[in-house]
Amino acid sequence: MDSPNPRYTLADIADRFGLELRGDETHLVGGVATLADAGPDDISFLANTAYLPKLADSRAGVVIIAAKHADSCPGNALVSDNPYAAYAKVATLFDHRPRNAPGVHDTAVIGSDVSIGEAVHVGAGAVIGDGCVIGDGCDIGPNCVLAPGVILGAGSRLVANVTLCDDVRLGQRVMVHPGAVIGADGFGIARDTKGWIKVPQLGGVRLGDDCEIGANACIDRGAIGHTVLEEDVRIDNLVQVGHNCHIGAHSALAAFAGLSGSTRVGRNVLFGGRSGTTGHLEIADGVTVTGMTMISKSITEPGSTWAGGIPGRPIREWQRALGRLFRLDKTIERLQGRDNNTEK
Amino acid sequence: MDSPNPRYTLADIADRFGLELRGDETHLVGGVATLADAGPDDISFLANTAYLPKLADSRAGVVIIAAKHADSCPGNALVSDNPYAAYAKVATLFDHRPRNAPGVHDTAVIGSDVSIGEAVHVGAGAVIGDGCVIGDGCDIGPNCVLAPGVILGAGSRLVANVTLCDDVRLGQRVMVHPGAVIGADGFGIARDTKGWIKVPQLGGVRLGDDCEIGANACIDRGAIGHTVLEEDVRIDNLVQVGHNCHIGAHSALAAFAGLSGSTRVGRNVLFGGRSGTTGHLEIADGVTVTGMTMISKSITEPGSTWAGGIPGRPIREWQRALGRLFRLDKTIERLQGRDNNTEK
Amino acid sequence: MDSPNPRYTLADIADRFGLELRGDETHLVGGVATLADAGPDDISFLANTAYLPKLADSRAGVVIIAAKHADSCPGNALVSDNPYAAYAKVATLFDHRPRNAPGVHDTAVIGSDVSIGEAVHVGAGAVIGDGCVIGDGCDIGPNCVLAPGVILGAGSRLVANVTLCDDVRLGQRVMVHPGAVIGADGFGIARDTKGWIKVPQLGGVRLGDDCEIGANACIDRGAIGHTVLEEDVRIDNLVQVGHNCHIGAHSALAAFAGLSGSTRVGRNVLFGGRSGTTGHLEIADGVTVTGMTMISKSITEPGSTWAGGIPGRPIREWQRALGRLFRLDKTIERLQGRDNNTEK
Repeated sequence: MDSPNPRYTLADIADRFGLELRGDETHLVGGVATLADAGPDDISFLANTAYLPKLADSRAGVVIIAAKHADSCPGNALVSDNPYAAYAKVATLFDHRPRNAPGVHDTAVIGSDVSIGEAVHVGAGAVIGDGCVIGDGCDIGPNCVLAPGVILGAGSRLVANVTLCDDVRLGQRVMVHPGAVIGADGFGIARDTKGWIKVPQLGGVRLGDDCEIGANACIDRGAIGHTVLEEDVRIDNLVQVGHNCHIGAHSALAAFAGLSGSTRVGRNVLFGGRSGTTGHLEIADGVTVTGMTMISKSITEPGSTWAGGIPGRPIREWQRALGRLFRLDKTIERLQGRDNNTEK
Repeated sequence: MDSPNPRYTLADIADRFGLELRGDETHLVGGVATLADAGPDDISFLANTAYLPKLADSRAGVVIIAAKHADSCPGNALVSDNPYAAYAKVATLFDHRPRNAPGVHDTAVIGSDVSIGEAVHVGAGAVIGDGCVIGDGCDIGPNCVLAPGVILGAGSRLVANVTLCDDVRLGQRVMVHPGAVIGADGFGIARDTKGWIKVPQLGGVRLGDDCEIGANACIDRGAIGHTVLEEDVRIDNLVQVGHNCHIGAHSALAAFAGLSGSTRVGRNVLFGGRSGTTGHLEIADGVTVTGMTMISKSITEPGSTWAGGIPGRPIREWQRALGRLFRLDKTIERLQGRDNNTEK
Repeated sequence: MDSPNPRYTLADIADRFGLELRGDETHLVGGVATLADAGPDDISFLANTAYLPKLADSRAGVVIIAAKHADSCPGNALVSDNPYAAYAKVATLFDHRPRNAPGVHDTAVIGSDVSIGEAVHVGAGAVIGDGCVIGDGCDIGPNCVLAPGVILGAGSRLVANVTLCDDVRLGQRVMVHPGAVIGADGFGIARDTKGWIKVPQLGGVRLGDDCEIGANACIDRGAIGHTVLEEDVRIDNLVQVGHNCHIGAHSALAAFAGLSGSTRVGRNVLFGGRSGTTGHLEIADGVTVTGMTMISKSITEPGSTWAGGIPGRPIREWQRALGRLFRLDKTIERLQGRDNNTEK
């Protein structure tokens, strides 16, 4: 019963996406694959030059590629200034993953005074609290929980098992992957004589349009005022954004990145995997923080790149370096002592 | 229909919380805000001296502040030895977040022989296994799962999508944020000739009164005997506590902190973000482990502070330092060689 | 009404598991405990020599132990070449944790064209999408979500609140702990002139037999082609496996480990806690990456051990070492200058 997936001529693809075709206009492709795995029916791409050695032997029906590498392409080429972005667009033609049809599942629980837009899907076991507002075309997957008063902009999608706490508002076309938690209390505790006192977390969360939040990521609510992600912020899995952070548009945080409370991140900032900040810092626009780097003071220079991660070494080499580091004071004293001796 | 939120005179607040008021007793406040954002209707506070420059221009109706800074306060001041703890208490007056009314939702699934106390809320889709005991005033949010036999002390709250596995017992007033998992199997695997053998994880988890567990945090069950958190332990989001750890009262672990199995942590210990231990260690009372620090041997000195994290630098500066470190052996040899030459 | 747990003679245990008994064949044991906590009714074991000092005073009914330490055992001994693996097997006798009986709970939601094998348990609130195939003896816990088309091999178990996205296939006897997410989109984003473009994530996930996935861990789907874990791969809590990774059989990743996209890991590889890779690397068979180590280039030597983590130190000692490192260029210049002076 399945109809076969559609196929496209290279001329059609070049035309749809404004790419320059070098090769056979009538050649048909019906899927995507890596350079190594692609056959004549597949589109592939070259975006990372580490894969350039795979190009010569690739059997791909066509390769999306930069002009400077197009001559090395053994077959058809679709030339682009930005092959990865071009691939991202072209690949949508071949995205046949199932879509949820509009409708509210019988087992979903919808509170009172909930506003649900046109063409919304609400999956089995989803719980939508009183007063929520669900924009047109939203897709709320199975067993998601929306606390009372949550607002979802049109076209947003919560894949499954997502939790949105109260006073959380998402813009349009926001995608939230399974297990993500938006709006949990921030880690606000004050030492008193007898132990900890919880600091009430009274703010909410505001996510701009086109944000994406990875699986099991956490975006805490504000303690006072809101935690804010401007539009098009991309958050990978298992990322932590502390209370009252503000992240500028088009910034991206890779897996395990973490921002301590009240960090103010500019636009177009990149945080590599497992990088992060201590609290109350400002990070200028366009900064890159490389993987495993802890930022402990504000970064004022836009576009600068910061690092502190140690590339692993064979263990004996690393232990020797570390031992040398911790003995350095004594080593220098000894060397100075010799100097002193020779100076006498 | 909403009644406006209540407002309080400064005299009233000073009286309720035992603070010294310097200023207008009749001034009314109705909310909280940061020094920068506050207006005359708001309470603010100064706990972190990094924000002292914001004080002079603050329009706050009153600032909770230490005596030594009170003279710098442009308006009314509520003086406290511990402004952050005082703020935490005062802010509860302005916590108008929705509370769940007692009652068990129709779609909740309650097993056999479950004991449910007075004034308990069980949300939609929550699943409570056979033989669970739910204390008075507990609030179990939507889609939480309690395995058979779980015990919840009075006043505990599971926000939503929380999982408590079998043989998990929580004290009173424990708060667990969404996505947290308490009592999953520890990572016990033994190498055999053919591969891994799973080591049965036969213990449970015991949480003392007033503990708080962050979103998507994991507290593993014991392999033999229990994993134990004493009272008032505060666990941030995405923290991992391995099997058979024991954490003393009033300790706190920030986001991404991780304790390997059988770590024994004293009372009043602080683990900064992304810090952790290798397994089978003991950490003395009152120790502070700063962010991104890996502790690999026991710490016996109470109250000591430990570090190993590297504050990020501009990337070229960091690469130069790292290169220097790995060339250090040769550099020292060379310097010694010159010394030797000069000594001849 | 509970029948007491069964007890076994040491002769019986030695016989069942092929161990050499040194001691009283008729002695009965009924449980497991640590060396410190065990009484005469308990089995204990010695696998980590750090616990050797606890052996002399142990009151355990029998200790599973290596031959070289057996003489130090104060009572009965069960001698094994591999005491930890032997303990893992013996302890299964004492695993009395509740098992779920076969049957589909009334509140579970089963899609169309789902194939469910013999003796399958489906818990309350679980959602199984259209066309899923559930093998014999599977146990799908409460509030798990299986997207359409998921395939579960016989004997697999999803504990609770697990999410399996579309195009995810698990082998036999795979165990997935609560909150784990398998098959979420990888972090594929391409920079365009206006911001990010999402790269469609068109592959799936394939897990081999006997894999185990920890609580709140994330295994992303492939971008092109699948993310693959071969058989008997063991993944701890809060681990991140990026899109298109391939992990060889019998490898293990401890908590917070993270593999960036397209990492190809060999067989029998160990990643310690909080270790990881940057993307597009190959890691040879049998490699060990110690805790907190970032691998940034491929490792070609099988069986090698890599490190980059810094054992924490008292904070002043660490700050001094770090300061020394960043002043090293100047220090060396100074030392060279003195040399130069003395050479004149």
